[in-house]
Amino acid sequence: MARDMKKHDDVHPAAWETLSRTEEAACRVFSVIRKRCRHPVKNLEADFYVLESADWVNAVAVTPDGRMILVEQFRYGTEALSLEVTGGVMDLGEDPIEAAERELSEETGFVGKRARLLGSVRPNPAIQSNQCHIVLIEGAERLGPTEWDENEELALYLPTVEEAYEMVYSGRITHALTLNALLLYMPVWKADRGAI
Amino acid sequence: MARDMKKHDDVHPAAWETLSRTEEAACRVFSVIRKRCRHPVKNLEADFYVLESADWVNAVAVTPDGRMILVEQFRYGTEALSLEVTGGVMDLGEDPIEAAERELSEETGFVGKRARLLGSVRPNPAIQSNQCHIVLIEGAERLGPTEWDENEELALYLPTVEEAYEMVYSGRITHALTLNALLLYMPVWKADRGAI
Repeated sequence: MARDMKKHDDVHPAAWETLSRTEEAACRVFSVIRKRCRHPVKNLEADFYVLESADWVNAVAVTPDGRMILVEQFRYGTEALSLEVTGGVMDLGEDPIEAAERELSEETGFVGKRARLLGSVRPNPAIQSNQCHIVLIEGAERLGPTEWDENEELALYLPTVEEAYEMVYSGRITHALTLNALLLYMPVWKADRGAI
Repeated sequence: MARDMKKHDDVHPAAWETLSRTEEAACRVFSVIRKRCRHPVKNLEADFYVLESADWVNAVAVTPDGRMILVEQFRYGTEALSLEVTGGVMDLGEDPIEAAERELSEETGFVGKRARLLGSVRPNPAIQSNQCHIVLIEGAERLGPTEWDENEELALYLPTVEEAYEMVYSGRITHALTLNALLLYMPVWKADRGAI
Protein backbone atom coordinates (compact mmCIF):
# COMPACT_ATOMS: atom_id res chain seq x y z
CA MET A 1 0.00 0.00 0.00
CA ALA A 2 2.58 2.59 1.06
CA ARG A 3 4.82 2.30 -2.00
CA ASP A 4 6.05 5.68 -3.07
CA MET A 5 6.64 6.69 -6.64
CA LYS A 6 9.96 8.00 -7.91
CA LYS A 7 10.28 11.44 -9.37
CA HIS A 8 10.51 11.70 -13.13
CA ASP A 9 13.05 14.50 -13.26
CA ASP A 10 15.92 15.72 -11.09
CA VAL A 11 14.21 18.77 -9.55
CA HIS A 12 14.48 18.97 -5.76
CA PRO A 13 12.23 21.76 -4.45
CA ALA A 14 13.94 23.62 -1.62
CA ALA A 15 12.41 24.40 1.77
CA TRP A 16 12.31 28.19 2.16
CA GLU A 17 13.42 29.72 5.47
CA THR A 18 11.00 31.98 7.32
CA LEU A 19 12.84 35.18 8.24
CA SER A 20 10.00 37.03 10.00
CA ARG A 21 6.27 36.81 10.71
CA THR A 22 3.90 39.78 11.00
CA GLU A 23 0.24 39.55 12.00
CA GLU A 24 -1.80 41.47 9.41
CA ALA A 25 -5.27 40.73 10.84
CA ALA A 26 -6.70 38.87 13.83
CA CYS A 27 -9.96 37.26 12.69
CA ARG A 28 -11.20 35.31 15.73
CA VAL A 29 -10.90 31.75 14.33
CA PHE A 30 -7.75 32.52 12.34
CA SER A 31 -4.90 35.03 12.06
CA VAL A 32 -3.54 36.39 8.81
CA ILE A 33 0.27 36.31 8.88
CA ARG A 34 2.68 37.90 6.41
CA LYS A 35 5.84 35.78 6.25
CA ARG A 36 9.11 37.03 4.84
CA CYS A 37 10.82 33.97 3.35
CA ARG A 38 14.17 33.24 1.76
CA HIS A 39 15.13 30.55 -0.71
CA PRO A 40 18.14 28.74 0.84
CA VAL A 41 20.15 28.61 -2.41
CA LYS A 42 18.91 31.18 -4.91
CA ASN A 43 19.36 34.85 -4.04
CA LEU A 44 15.63 35.31 -3.56
CA GLU A 45 13.36 36.72 -0.83
CA ALA A 46 9.57 37.16 -0.95
CA ASP A 47 6.50 37.82 1.21
CA PHE A 48 3.76 35.21 1.50
CA TYR A 49 0.40 35.53 3.27
CA VAL A 50 -0.91 32.58 5.27
CA LEU A 51 -3.71 31.83 7.73
CA GLU A 52 -2.82 30.36 11.07
CA SER A 53 -5.48 28.63 13.13
CA ALA A 54 -6.10 25.66 15.38
CA ASP A 55 -6.56 22.26 13.77
CA TRP A 56 -10.03 21.28 12.62
CA VAL A 57 -11.88 18.00 12.99
CA ASN A 58 -14.57 16.31 10.91
CA ALA A 59 -16.68 13.33 12.01
CA VAL A 60 -17.88 10.64 9.61
CA ALA A 61 -20.71 9.43 11.88
CA VAL A 62 -22.88 6.45 11.00
CA THR A 63 -25.88 4.96 12.76
CA PRO A 64 -26.39 1.25 13.55
CA ASP A 65 -28.81 1.00 10.59
CA GLY A 66 -26.26 2.35 8.09
CA ARG A 67 -27.23 6.02 7.84
CA MET A 68 -24.75 8.87 7.69
CA ILE A 69 -25.27 11.88 9.91
CA LEU A 70 -25.12 15.12 7.91
CA VAL A 71 -26.09 18.68 8.77
CA GLU A 72 -27.04 21.60 6.58
CA GLN A 73 -26.25 25.13 7.68
CA PHE A 74 -25.86 28.64 6.31
CA ARG A 75 -22.21 29.47 5.63
CA TYR A 76 -20.98 33.06 5.63
CA GLY A 77 -18.13 32.49 3.14
CA THR A 78 -20.33 31.25 0.32
CA GLU A 79 -23.53 32.99 1.61
CA ALA A 80 -25.41 29.75 0.94
CA LEU A 81 -26.60 26.59 2.68
CA SER A 82 -24.02 23.79 2.82
CA LEU A 83 -24.56 20.07 3.50
CA GLU A 84 -21.71 18.68 5.58
CA VAL A 85 -20.51 16.13 8.08
CA THR A 86 -20.35 17.53 11.61
CA GLY A 87 -17.10 19.10 12.77
CA GLY A 88 -15.39 22.27 13.82
CA VAL A 89 -12.38 23.89 15.42
CA MET A 90 -10.50 21.82 17.98
CA ASP A 91 -9.97 23.19 21.46
CA LEU A 92 -6.39 23.71 22.63
CA GLY A 93 -4.88 20.38 23.71
CA GLU A 94 -7.96 18.45 22.62
CA ASP A 95 -7.55 15.01 21.04
CA PRO A 96 -9.09 14.62 17.53
CA ILE A 97 -11.37 11.77 18.64
CA GLU A 98 -12.65 13.69 21.68
CA ALA A 99 -13.15 16.78 19.52
CA ALA A 100 -15.11 14.82 16.90
CA GLU A 101 -17.34 13.25 19.57
CA ARG A 102 -17.92 16.68 21.12
CA GLU A 103 -18.84 18.31 17.79
CA LEU A 104 -21.18 15.46 16.79
CA SER A 105 -22.94 15.62 20.15
CA GLU A 106 -23.20 19.43 20.25
CA GLU A 107 -24.44 19.71 16.66
CA THR A 108 -26.86 16.76 16.56
CA GLY A 109 -27.26 15.12 19.98
CA PHE A 110 -25.87 11.85 18.58
CA VAL A 111 -23.33 9.80 20.53
CA GLY A 112 -21.32 6.91 19.06
CA LYS A 113 -20.17 3.56 20.43
CA ARG A 114 -16.73 3.43 18.73
CA ALA A 115 -14.47 6.10 17.26
CA ARG A 116 -11.13 6.09 15.46
CA LEU A 117 -8.97 8.39 13.35
CA LEU A 118 -9.26 7.71 9.59
CA GLY A 119 -6.56 10.21 8.59
CA SER A 120 -5.54 13.86 8.55
CA VAL A 121 -5.53 16.23 5.60
CA ARG A 122 -4.19 19.71 4.85
CA PRO A 123 -7.10 22.06 4.04
CA ASN A 124 -4.83 24.27 1.92
CA PRO A 125 -1.04 23.86 2.15
CA ALA A 126 -0.41 27.02 0.11
CA ILE A 127 -2.09 29.41 2.54
CA GLN A 128 -3.00 27.49 5.71
CA SER A 129 -0.79 25.98 8.38
CA ASN A 130 -3.32 23.65 9.96
CA GLN A 131 -4.62 20.10 9.56
CA CYS A 132 -8.15 18.71 9.43
CA HIS A 133 -8.45 15.38 11.24
CA ILE A 134 -11.11 12.94 10.03
CA VAL A 135 -12.64 10.66 12.65
CA LEU A 136 -15.00 7.73 12.07
CA ILE A 137 -17.74 7.41 14.70
CA GLU A 138 -19.79 4.21 14.47
CA GLY A 139 -22.94 3.06 16.22
CA ALA A 140 -24.17 6.65 16.65
CA GLU A 141 -27.58 7.16 18.27
CA ARG A 142 -29.47 10.25 19.39
CA LEU A 143 -29.02 10.30 23.13
CA GLY A 144 -29.18 13.96 24.09
CA PRO A 145 -30.25 17.47 23.10
CA THR A 146 -28.22 19.63 20.73
CA GLU A 147 -26.06 22.43 22.14
CA TRP A 148 -25.77 25.03 19.41
CA ASP A 149 -23.87 28.28 19.57
CA GLU A 150 -26.04 31.39 19.43
CA ASN A 151 -25.45 31.72 15.67
CA GLU A 152 -25.96 28.06 14.75
CA GLU A 153 -29.02 26.53 13.05
CA LEU A 154 -28.43 23.01 11.75
CA ALA A 155 -30.88 20.88 9.79
CA LEU A 156 -30.29 17.16 10.28
CA TYR A 157 -30.15 14.75 7.33
CA LEU A 158 -29.81 10.97 7.67
CA PRO A 159 -29.22 9.55 4.19
CA THR A 160 -28.00 5.99 3.74
CA VAL A 161 -24.25 5.90 3.11
CA GLU A 162 -24.99 4.98 -0.50
CA GLU A 163 -27.23 8.04 -0.85
CA ALA A 164 -24.46 10.21 0.65
CA TYR A 165 -22.06 9.04 -2.08
CA GLU A 166 -24.75 9.71 -4.70
CA MET A 167 -24.89 13.28 -3.36
CA VAL A 168 -21.12 13.60 -3.90
CA TYR A 169 -21.44 12.75 -7.58
CA SER A 170 -24.67 14.70 -8.16
CA GLY A 171 -23.01 17.88 -6.82
CA ARG A 172 -25.32 18.15 -3.78
CA ILE A 173 -22.33 17.86 -1.41
CA THR A 174 -19.56 20.31 -2.36
CA HIS A 175 -17.69 21.11 0.88
CA ALA A 176 -14.07 20.09 0.18
CA LEU A 177 -13.40 18.77 3.68
CA THR A 178 -16.67 16.80 3.85
CA LEU A 179 -15.69 15.26 0.50
CA ASN A 180 -12.33 14.32 2.06
CA ALA A 181 -14.12 12.64 4.95
CA LEU A 182 -16.21 10.59 2.50
CA LEU A 183 -13.11 9.66 0.46
CA LEU A 184 -11.26 8.36 3.52
CA TYR A 185 -14.36 6.46 4.72
CA MET A 186 -14.98 4.78 1.33
CA PRO A 187 -12.71 1.70 1.75
CA VAL A 188 -14.00 1.09 5.29
CA TRP A 189 -17.60 1.19 4.04
CA LYS A 190 -16.82 -1.10 1.10
CA ALA A 191 -15.04 -3.61 3.36
CA ASP A 192 -18.01 -3.59 5.78
CA ARG A 193 -20.47 -4.11 2.91
CA GLY A 194 -18.36 -6.96 1.55
CA ALA A 195 -18.58 -8.63 4.96
CA ILE A 196 -22.41 -8.74 4.94
CA MET B 1 -28.39 9.42 -9.04
CA ALA B 2 -29.57 12.91 -8.14
CA ARG B 3 -32.11 11.84 -5.51
CA ASP B 4 -32.03 14.14 -2.53
CA MET B 5 -32.62 13.04 1.04
CA LYS B 6 -35.31 14.53 3.24
CA LYS B 7 -34.45 16.33 6.42
CA HIS B 8 -35.04 14.45 9.66
CA ASP B 9 -36.26 17.39 11.71
CA ASP B 10 -38.13 20.64 11.04
CA VAL B 11 -35.19 23.04 11.30
CA HIS B 12 -34.87 25.46 8.38
CA PRO B 13 -31.56 27.37 8.61
CA ALA B 14 -32.03 30.99 7.61
CA ALA B 15 -29.90 32.89 5.10
CA TRP B 16 -28.27 35.80 6.94
CA GLU B 17 -28.27 39.24 5.28
CA THR B 18 -24.94 40.99 4.75
CA LEU B 19 -25.24 44.56 6.09
CA SER B 20 -21.70 45.76 5.34
CA ARG B 21 -18.30 44.58 4.14
CA THR B 22 -14.94 45.96 5.30
CA GLU B 23 -11.57 44.91 3.88
CA GLU B 24 -9.28 44.03 6.80
CA ALA B 25 -6.24 42.95 4.78
CA ALA B 26 -5.26 42.75 1.09
CA CYS B 27 -3.07 39.66 0.68
CA ARG B 28 -2.30 39.52 -3.05
CA VAL B 29 -4.15 36.26 -3.92
CA PHE B 30 -6.99 36.91 -1.45
CA SER B 31 -8.64 39.68 0.57
CA VAL B 32 -9.77 39.34 4.16
CA ILE B 33 -13.26 40.81 4.56
CA ARG B 34 -15.17 41.48 7.77
CA LYS B 35 -18.89 41.11 7.10
CA ARG B 36 -21.56 42.49 9.40
CA CYS B 37 -24.50 40.08 9.08
CA ARG B 38 -28.06 39.95 10.39
CA HIS B 39 -30.30 36.97 10.97
CA PRO B 40 -33.54 37.73 9.09
CA VAL B 41 -35.84 36.55 11.90
CA LYS B 42 -34.02 36.50 15.24
CA ASN B 43 -32.89 39.83 16.69
CA LEU B 44 -29.25 38.97 16.08
CA GLU B 45 -26.28 40.65 14.38
CA ALA B 46 -22.68 39.43 14.24
CA ASP B 47 -19.33 39.94 12.46
CA PHE B 48 -17.81 37.16 10.36
CA TYR B 49 -14.39 37.09 8.67
CA VAL B 50 -14.10 35.60 5.21
CA LEU B 51 -11.52 35.37 2.41
CA GLU B 52 -12.47 36.56 -1.03
CA SER B 53 -10.47 35.44 -4.03
CA ALA B 54 -10.77 34.35 -7.63
CA ASP B 55 -11.89 30.78 -8.33
CA TRP B 56 -9.24 28.07 -8.40
CA VAL B 57 -8.80 25.20 -10.83
CA ASN B 58 -7.27 21.72 -10.45
CA ALA B 59 -6.37 19.38 -13.31
CA VAL B 60 -6.63 15.60 -13.07
CA ALA B 61 -4.23 14.91 -15.94
CA VAL B 62 -3.54 11.41 -17.23
CA THR B 63 -1.14 10.16 -19.89
CA PRO B 64 -2.03 7.74 -22.72
CA ASP B 65 -0.29 4.92 -20.77
CA GLY B 66 -2.43 5.46 -17.64
CA ARG B 67 -0.16 7.59 -15.47
CA MET B 68 -1.31 10.53 -13.40
CA ILE B 69 0.62 13.79 -13.55
CA LEU B 70 1.50 15.02 -10.06
CA VAL B 71 3.88 17.71 -8.85
CA GLU B 72 5.59 18.20 -5.51
CA GLN B 73 6.40 21.69 -4.30
CA PHE B 74 7.23 23.60 -1.13
CA ARG B 75 4.15 25.23 0.39
CA TYR B 76 4.43 28.31 2.59
CA GLY B 77 1.29 27.59 4.66
CA THR B 78 2.44 24.21 5.94
CA GLU B 79 6.19 24.96 5.47
CA ALA B 80 6.57 21.51 3.91
CA LEU B 81 6.62 19.76 0.55
CA SER B 82 3.21 18.83 -0.82
CA LEU B 83 2.34 16.31 -3.57
CA GLU B 84 -0.52 17.61 -5.70
CA VAL B 85 -2.28 17.66 -9.02
CA THR B 86 -1.44 20.74 -11.06
CA GLY B 87 -3.63 23.81 -10.68
CA GLY B 88 -3.83 27.37 -9.51
CA VAL B 89 -5.72 30.63 -9.48
CA MET B 90 -7.93 31.32 -12.49
CA ASP B 91 -7.41 34.51 -14.46
CA LEU B 92 -10.31 36.94 -14.67
CA GLY B 93 -12.85 35.75 -17.26
CA GLU B 94 -10.94 32.53 -17.88
CA ASP B 95 -12.86 29.31 -18.49
CA PRO B 96 -12.05 26.42 -16.07
CA ILE B 97 -10.96 24.11 -18.90
CA GLU B 98 -8.64 26.73 -20.43
CA ALA B 99 -7.25 27.53 -16.97
CA ALA B 100 -6.57 23.84 -16.22
CA GLU B 101 -4.82 23.37 -19.56
CA ARG B 102 -2.74 26.50 -18.95
CA GLU B 103 -1.70 25.43 -15.43
CA LEU B 104 -0.81 21.89 -16.56
CA SER B 105 1.30 23.23 -19.41
CA GLU B 106 3.03 25.94 -17.33
CA GLU B 107 3.82 23.61 -14.44
CA THR B 108 4.84 20.46 -16.36
CA GLY B 109 5.02 21.09 -20.12
CA PHE B 110 2.29 18.47 -20.66
CA VAL B 111 -0.58 19.11 -23.10
CA GLY B 112 -3.72 16.96 -23.30
CA LYS B 113 -5.89 15.76 -26.15
CA ARG B 114 -9.29 16.05 -24.43
CA ALA B 115 -10.53 18.01 -21.40
CA ARG B 116 -13.82 18.28 -19.53
CA LEU B 117 -15.15 19.59 -16.22
CA LEU B 118 -15.65 16.84 -13.59
CA GLY B 119 -17.25 19.13 -11.01
CA SER B 120 -16.77 22.14 -8.76
CA VAL B 121 -16.23 22.19 -5.01
CA ARG B 122 -16.18 24.78 -2.25
CA PRO B 123 -12.73 24.89 -0.62
CA ASN B 124 -14.20 26.16 2.65
CA PRO B 125 -17.79 27.47 2.73
CA ALA B 126 -17.39 28.84 6.28
CA ILE B 127 -14.61 31.30 5.44
CA GLN B 128 -14.12 31.35 1.66
CA SER B 129 -16.37 32.65 -1.08
CA ASN B 130 -14.78 30.89 -4.03
CA GLN B 131 -15.03 27.59 -5.90
CA CYS B 132 -12.39 25.13 -7.05
CA HIS B 133 -13.17 23.63 -10.46
CA ILE B 134 -11.86 20.14 -11.22
CA VAL B 135 -11.01 19.40 -14.84
CA LEU B 136 -10.08 16.03 -16.35
CA ILE B 137 -7.36 16.23 -19.02
CA GLU B 138 -6.77 12.98 -20.91
CA GLY B 139 -4.11 11.90 -23.38
CA ALA B 140 -1.54 14.28 -21.85
CA GLU B 141 1.98 14.24 -23.32
CA ARG B 142 5.04 16.38 -22.69
CA LEU B 143 5.15 18.73 -25.64
CA GLY B 144 6.87 21.84 -24.37
CA PRO B 145 9.06 23.40 -21.68
CA THR B 146 7.74 24.41 -18.24
CA GLU B 147 7.04 28.08 -17.53
CA TRP B 148 7.44 28.52 -13.79
CA ASP B 149 6.99 31.70 -11.79
CA GLU B 150 10.18 33.01 -10.22
CA ASN B 151 9.28 31.32 -6.89
CA GLU B 152 8.20 27.96 -8.30
CA GLU B 153 10.17 24.69 -8.20
CA LEU B 154 8.09 21.64 -9.06
CA ALA B 155 9.23 18.03 -9.02
CA LEU B 156 7.30 15.85 -11.46
CA TYR B 157 5.86 12.47 -10.43
CA LEU B 158 4.12 10.08 -12.82
CA PRO B 159 2.56 7.28 -10.75
CA THR B 160 0.02 4.93 -12.26
CA VAL B 161 -3.53 5.96 -11.31
CA GLU B 162 -3.68 2.96 -8.99
CA GLU B 163 -0.49 4.11 -7.24
CA ALA B 164 -1.97 7.61 -6.88
CA TYR B 165 -4.98 6.15 -5.02
CA GLU B 166 -2.59 4.09 -2.85
CA MET B 167 -0.90 7.36 -1.92
CA VAL B 168 -4.29 8.75 -0.83
CA TYR B 169 -4.80 5.92 1.64
CA SER B 170 -1.16 5.74 2.80
CA GLY B 171 -1.27 9.44 3.74
CA ARG B 172 1.34 10.47 1.14
CA ILE B 173 -1.19 12.78 -0.57
CA THR B 174 -2.89 15.09 1.95
CA HIS B 175 -3.85 18.26 0.03
CA ALA B 176 -7.63 18.53 0.48
CA LEU B 177 -8.31 19.83 -3.04
CA THR B 178 -6.08 17.23 -4.72
CA LEU B 179 -8.02 14.60 -2.75
CA ASN B 180 -11.24 16.13 -4.11
CA ALA B 181 -9.88 15.85 -7.65
CA LEU B 182 -9.09 12.16 -7.10
CA LEU B 183 -12.55 11.54 -5.58
CA LEU B 184 -14.34 13.07 -8.58
CA TYR B 185 -12.12 11.16 -11.02
CA MET B 186 -12.63 7.77 -9.31
CA PRO B 187 -15.87 6.68 -11.10
CA VAL B 188 -14.47 7.76 -14.49
CA TRP B 189 -11.30 5.71 -13.89
CA LYS B 190 -13.29 2.69 -12.72
CA ALA B 191 -15.60 2.84 -15.73
CA ASP B 192 -12.58 3.07 -18.08
CA ARG B 193 -10.93 0.10 -16.38
CA GLY B 194 -14.15 -1.88 -16.62
CA ALA B 195 -14.15 -1.22 -20.35
CA ILE B 196 -10.71 -2.81 -20.86
